[in-house]
Amino acid sequence: MEKKQKIIVLGYDGYIGTAVTQRLLSKGHTVVGVDDHSKRVHVTGLGSKSAIDQLTPMEKTKEFMSLGRFTAINMDIAIEADELDDLISAVKPDTIVNLAHNPSAPFSMISHEKAQYVLVNNIISTNNLLWSIKKNVPDCHLISIGTTGEYDHTSNIDIEEGYITLEHNGRTSNEMIYPRRPGSIYHTSKVANTYLIDYTTRAWGLRTTDIMQSVVFGNYTEESAKTGILSPLHSDEAFGTVINRFIVQAKLGVPLTVYGEGKHRRGFLALNDSVQALEIAVNNPPEPGRTRVWNQLSEWHSMNDLAEMVKETVESIDEGKTVEISHIPTPRNEHTGEHYYNYKTDILKSLGYVPTRTIKEEIAYTYERLSEDIDQLKEVVTPKINFTDPR
Amino acid sequence: MEKKQKIIVLGYDGYIGTAVTQRLLSKGHTVVGVDDHSKRVHVTGLGSKSAIDQLTPMEKTKEFMSLGRFTAINMDIAIEADELDDLISAVKPDTIVNLAHNPSAPFSMISHEKAQYVLVNNIISTNNLLWSIKKNVPDCHLISIGTTGEYDHTSNIDIEEGYITLEHNGRTSNEMIYPRRPGSIYHTSKVANTYLIDYTTRAWGLRTTDIMQSVVFGNYTEESAKTGILSPLHSDEAFGTVINRFIVQAKLGVPLTVYGEGKHRRGFLALNDSVQALEIAVNNPPEPGRTRVWNQLSEWHSMNDLAEMVKETVESIDEGKTVEISHIPTPRNEHTGEHYYNYKTDILKSLGYVPTRTIKEEIAYTYERLSEDIDQLKEVVTPKINFTDPR
Repeated sequence: MEKKQKIIVLGYDGYIGTAVTQRLLSKGHTVVGVDDHSKRVHVTGLGSKSAIDQLTPMEKTKEFMSLGRFTAINMDIAIEADELDDLISAVKPDTIVNLAHNPSAPFSMISHEKAQYVLVNNIISTNNLLWSIKKNVPDCHLISIGTTGEYDHTSNIDIEEGYITLEHNGRTSNEMIYPRRPGSIYHTSKVANTYLIDYTTRAWGLRTTDIMQSVVFGNYTEESAKTGILSPLHSDEAFGTVINRFIVQAKLGVPLTVYGEGKHRRGFLALNDSVQALEIAVNNPPEPGRTRVWNQLSEWHSMNDLAEMVKETVESIDEGKTVEISHIPTPRNEHTGEHYYNYKTDILKSLGYVPTRTIKEEIAYTYERLSEDIDQLKEVVTPKINFTDPR
Repeated sequence: MEKKQKIIVLGYDGYIGTAVTQRLLSKGHTVVGVDDHSKRVHVTGLGSKSAIDQLTPMEKTKEFMSLGRFTAINMDIAIEADELDDLISAVKPDTIVNLAHNPSAPFSMISHEKAQYVLVNNIISTNNLLWSIKKNVPDCHLISIGTTGEYDHTSNIDIEEGYITLEHNGRTSNEMIYPRRPGSIYHTSKVANTYLIDYTTRAWGLRTTDIMQSVVFGNYTEESAKTGILSPLHSDEAFGTVINRFIVQAKLGVPLTVYGEGKHRRGFLALNDSVQALEIAVNNPPEPGRTRVWNQLSEWHSMNDLAEMVKETVESIDEGKTVEISHIPTPRNEHTGEHYYNYKTDILKSLGYVPTRTIKEEIAYTYERLSEDIDQLKEVVTPKINFTDPR
């Protein structure tokens, strides 16, 4: 029987937040959800919307309150530092799960202003959190979500979990932070958080987990399958990630857009498994003084393979549907050819992580739950934001 | 004969800015100096002041205008993004030298608010600069000042210049960014800039030099020796760096404060050589698309050696003076014992860099130019800001 905790979930209204909040409530934890609902605003601002019907924030709060001990707070944790500090001081959480990042690489490359928003939102919020934890709850476990996009996917060596001991010029190094090379200003904001968390954890003896997570896909979770409170599903050029966007493109009858050669590989995990991993983090706080970093993914595939999986699955469940695959020049400055790719994921496995959902299961599950009214997404589902030539 | 350039010097009123502006003017370049004079405010706010008498900003502007084509602008480049963009658009500089960082690790560890100031001041200003360069002057050469404190001084391997190709698990990596492990929130802000500059340089084909500079000391420059316009010299717990602080401690008759065992080594270069290196950067812009990173230092020493050098030099030039050395617990979370230390500095050397000033020469030169009226520094010259237990 796991200890019941008081947990603050920052970004509870988002894709992972909506799912993990239900998991934590279902296990009897007390959850204080914080969100400024800025993602809803940004998605609407792009002429987009969730491809799966959503409750309003008010409706979601009411539903979550019926599932367990839940409170919702509307707060921008990057800007409202004093309010965040008051909240942490009052709640005295055992664990804080920080999902309150703007999660979009393309969004951060739209314009100077958007880049600045992402940097401030993601870095200053982390600074606010760390100082407030140090002051109010130094033993609290902070779980922060980084991204495998902090690493260089084409470095040609194994990607270790956060740290590396390396050989150079005949000498063996002490433990070093695994080299980063972010692929957007968004990814740079996550790298900055890695170093902020690493440093303050060492200096102040904090208790922190920094998760390098790959791309999450699908919509099934054990809880939402019962409650019907599904996570938002983004498919637009900014907030859509590759599998989910392909699913929506298939539904809309537009070609799946594979970048470049499509041979570049990335890691993936189902939403239910992202939630599983976060629950493992909550139940297994690390020792203080050194950030625990793990890589969070279940499998990896090339973009070509993913497009084929979506085409095959959708054509098998939607009679008469023909799914086209189109190669377009990558709007990102990235390598799209063959490359070595080997992520270590030993830490999660050692804590009992076993993937529960396959990509094809999730494609089918998600496809069948798409909203009937998604025609407007035709305008935004094909990526146009150009990383190398922004506005 | 080097090409005459239009150069924007951001932070022209600071320690290095005051010196490099005079060098560039003396070589016939047109200089637009930008500063918000925030360092003067922060130094005063700590009850401190420059240990060498300073001109007011107005007086300094007037003097610089008499040396060449100089304009001064009062601007906070982190906050006034539009004004910065207008300036760059109007001036169309060949080179921008960015010295407009808050340069203090201890300052960033005083409090939550100070940490936030340093992060925003140092990171958002860089974001503002990069977008404005991309938009207005994509061929402009940006010279940014990082710090050797971005690296882990005790990694036990050679510290390369920005990049590394490493061996791991029997494979050879592609070029990676040399691993960082900053030692304060200030250093973290510099690391964030490293990745921002690296990424945008790759994505946008910018022309950038990112200098990893060690601790600068002393006050002589070829130009200030003629003009008498000396750089500010900081000795307080926040803005004072080790050699300069020891010189002022010796003058005040208080013990030189060596942290811990004092066996930890750091790199150093004289102010005249920092200016020399920046002039080399200005005259040798790199190719676009890959940030040129170099390590900027002339020599390295343990803290014990430096304290002995200051004691010996001051006692030889100030008759009857006895300088005490005191070991105090380090207020930083740092290793103060023996460690391997080997910085590569091949790039600067290949461009003709030869150190011009020794530490002992600079100790004597600086000591003899200290203001008569520095008694108030007794209150702030001994470090009390504790990195591991801030307010």
